[in-house]
Amino acid sequence: MSLSSKNAISPTRAEDYSQWYQEVVKMADLAENSPVRGCMIIKPWGYAIWENIQKELDKRIKETGHQNFYFPMFIPLSYMAREAEHIDGFAKECAIVTHHRLEVDSQNKLVPSGELEEPLVVRPTSEVVIGEAFARWINSYRDLPILGNQWANIVRWEMRPRIFLRTSEFLWQEGHTAHATAVEAMEETSKMLDVYKVFVEEFLAMSVIVGEKTEGEKFPGAENTYCIEAMMQDKKALQAGTSHFLGQTFSKAFKIKFLSSSGREEFAWTTSWGVSTRLIGGLIMSHSDDDGLVLPPKIAPLHIVIIPIVHNEEHRSNIMQYCESVMLELKETKFCNESIKILIDTSVKSTGNKIWSWIKKGVPIRLEIGEKELINQSLCVGKRDNSPSHKIIFNKAEFLEKVINILSEMQNSMLCKTREFTDQNTIFVNSKSEFLEMLDNEKNDVGFIKAFWKEDKDTEKMLKEKYHITPRCMPLEEKVKKGRCIFSGVEDGMLTLFGRAY
Amino acid sequence: MSLSSKNAISPTRAEDYSQWYQEVVKMADLAENSPVRGCMIIKPWGYAIWENIQKELDKRIKETGHQNFYFPMFIPLSYMAREAEHIDGFAKECAIVTHHRLEVDSQNKLVPSGELEEPLVVRPTSEVVIGEAFARWINSYRDLPILGNQWANIVRWEMRPRIFLRTSEFLWQEGHTAHATAVEAMEETSKMLDVYKVFVEEFLAMSVIVGEKTEGEKFPGAENTYCIEAMMQDKKALQAGTSHFLGQTFSKAFKIKFLSSSGREEFAWTTSWGVSTRLIGGLIMSHSDDDGLVLPPKIAPLHIVIIPIVHNEEHRSNIMQYCESVMLELKETKFCNESIKILIDTSVKSTGNKIWSWIKKGVPIRLEIGEKELINQSLCVGKRDNSPSHKIIFNKAEFLEKVINILSEMQNSMLCKTREFTDQNTIFVNSKSEFLEMLDNEKNDVGFIKAFWKEDKDTEKMLKEKYHITPRCMPLEEKVKKGRCIFSGVEDGMLTLFGRAY
Repeated sequence: MSLSSKNAISPTRAEDYSQWYQEVVKMADLAENSPVRGCMIIKPWGYAIWENIQKELDKRIKETGHQNFYFPMFIPLSYMAREAEHIDGFAKECAIVTHHRLEVDSQNKLVPSGELEEPLVVRPTSEVVIGEAFARWINSYRDLPILGNQWANIVRWEMRPRIFLRTSEFLWQEGHTAHATAVEAMEETSKMLDVYKVFVEEFLAMSVIVGEKTEGEKFPGAENTYCIEAMMQDKKALQAGTSHFLGQTFSKAFKIKFLSSSGREEFAWTTSWGVSTRLIGGLIMSHSDDDGLVLPPKIAPLHIVIIPIVHNEEHRSNIMQYCESVMLELKETKFCNESIKILIDTSVKSTGNKIWSWIKKGVPIRLEIGEKELINQSLCVGKRDNSPSHKIIFNKAEFLEKVINILSEMQNSMLCKTREFTDQNTIFVNSKSEFLEMLDNEKNDVGFIKAFWKEDKDTEKMLKEKYHITPRCMPLEEKVKKGRCIFSGVEDGMLTLFGRAY
Repeated sequence: MSLSSKNAISPTRAEDYSQWYQEVVKMADLAENSPVRGCMIIKPWGYAIWENIQKELDKRIKETGHQNFYFPMFIPLSYMAREAEHIDGFAKECAIVTHHRLEVDSQNKLVPSGELEEPLVVRPTSEVVIGEAFARWINSYRDLPILGNQWANIVRWEMRPRIFLRTSEFLWQEGHTAHATAVEAMEETSKMLDVYKVFVEEFLAMSVIVGEKTEGEKFPGAENTYCIEAMMQDKKALQAGTSHFLGQTFSKAFKIKFLSSSGREEFAWTTSWGVSTRLIGGLIMSHSDDDGLVLPPKIAPLHIVIIPIVHNEEHRSNIMQYCESVMLELKETKFCNESIKILIDTSVKSTGNKIWSWIKKGVPIRLEIGEKELINQSLCVGKRDNSPSHKIIFNKAEFLEKVINILSEMQNSMLCKTREFTDQNTIFVNSKSEFLEMLDNEKNDVGFIKAFWKEDKDTEKMLKEKYHITPRCMPLEEKVKKGRCIFSGVEDGMLTLFGRAY
């Protein structure tokens, strides 16, 4: 493929957004479907992004006083059943282990054997096993708070899997905490929601809306669920992280009791919060273009790739030497407190293929270095947020001086772009007729709609079934949060954000 | 408990080694058994050790050219069945998922439902799923080598679980590579075995013997299995890591074929290698004493703990200020390229309880700071490898100057101690009668025995059944590796290390 106006990804976003997404994943070599339906293989480029997410988020989780632990992935069925709402929420999507060995049957076929006395559920989330342990660990108010977190794999059987966005197995972190008072638990819930918001905006350059979930969209067993919601380029919403105030739901189900400072026996207040590999799906759909993945520099596994261009073999060693000296000088530079991550592509591919492969992988900066650059001590710079054919010639010293600015500006402008896009595609409506008219007119392209609404199941059902639209959240950062419900006319409607969701 | 001669761990090693181990785990708050038999909850102190293992080993795995990826934990039964030796090796210990949801039956009981067409095995290791992917990824010799690794949870159903040492679920890393030639694959196998040896000796301060497994002890499906074996304080062997040359076993089972540079279609050569949370069990049993865990400084979550001792409230703020200034100065110091990890214990516990809790957790250095230390600008230093009552008074400046030496010497002497212990408890025997006499005389305390042996199943079976002793490996770092078999008298016996194993 030449560096022409043709795009590297086919179909384009405009042609078929959903298929475009699959192609970006494939062309960037991020992940692929596995032989087990709904499960994915995360390939090195995709996993390196996850490792960067883990590293930064883990730091922030620890800085806010949490410690990591690890709980078993198997949950006895009877534990799952102990909290009614919780089991209702997960029963339809649980993988169940029923046997603990294999044997050859009379027809010489390998079959499960050694049936377990009690089936085990592969964790769809860990409130119940962790609740059981908290009940053992906590005796006195002095044992509180417990602030824990784990990085783990999770299984929720998906009937309509979609790579990174909805997979039967996914990777995540789940924080679990217990507190002496409701106020402290609520503070924790808010604090971690804020950690998510800041991380996702600063590192993934995705503008998010912080809000509270409605009754119908809450986590099974939570009193309140808070979330960060982001708008993708097709104007659909992606829930990017959640933080739950669990009240005393799990404390009562698992008897997490403690002796308070005044000597009374009380139930603890718990929280849980998580983000998953779904963030990678959000990252892709927020920034990528018709040439493939676009990575915010702060989360990119590589910041800069150097592509040596050798037309004449006699110049090879000088060009390579120049490339290496540029790489060494750039490594001296710090971006986000670490050395710039840089690589020289010495593979046997053609120059065009090299360039396109790094464009499709979303590397922020490409340096093409050939004879001319060697002679002039210059660099031919391609920025991923420009068009592939747009190159800038820098004097080497100038580039070294400016590289951090270039990366920072790229990071910032990506965030601004998603913020502007979200704002431009969010509309406030003041009446039911306006609301429904919008939905009727812009069926596939509606964006976010804000309206005052007093929750009721019938309206929610109608909107979901007829328009595939759901209340995403009640945004927290709004000046006026209450008003007259556009559906029922009652005065205590909440400002609610509606959208089509992944 | 006072700082008397009484030990913190009961029973002691001499009284009941196995029970002592359980108590050390419990008293250091490393892990505990979960409601699911055989599965463990890794608590923050234990998990922090695992994170340190991961961090250092991951660095070394990447430095040797490997990239991380992630494969699904579910393996279709038919995949497992494709390689006969492999399935034979794991069939008896596989957790099997047979259903993908739960429902309430007619007796109002929650039961598995939605039976899967094909049962899924929870990975006991990932050669087969990774082999299937390698077959798709590899077409030409240009695609080789593939050098991958994953950090994952693994399930092998254990009938006799033992925390960290044998658990039904455990955490590990598994490297998987594919190469164009047998020589390259064998080089990889050796390289990673060496990475393990160096890491375990340098970081975990456990002296290991590098060897090749006998036929009977090989990994199911491997052509050759190499291992590092360590001697625990009860003189039993612990297999601490393995590296497998898989030959073309999995290539043939999964059709991992490539077009060679000369245009022929060939099967690739593969390897796999892994270490697990079992290393933490080895760490405990190598170094701990009758007062609890002893951690090599390089792997300790904390290097130094400061215990403020305030007898008189009016001195509190000055003492705390002094503690903090000491902490800040120590944080300036680098150990293993990172700031010293240090904490001031401000909990409400009594001084005695604080001291004992950190002793039991194995923190290398305790600094007790009270009025006297404040006045003299000195530090009262307790080293974990000394007896709890042994304290050294340092001038502050002197300690700051010497702290890295103290930590390094502690690290080195721990390694030397395990090396000497292993050497002292390894005996070479030259005849069958000498061999059996030893076993008859020292039934529970035999250590390692080296002898020339030509593998035969009957002898192996007899030794295992009668003496619970197995061939641990054929050591690689021996001058004379071949000799007359002490059992059969044939000349081509291999120098073999025998021992009782965990």
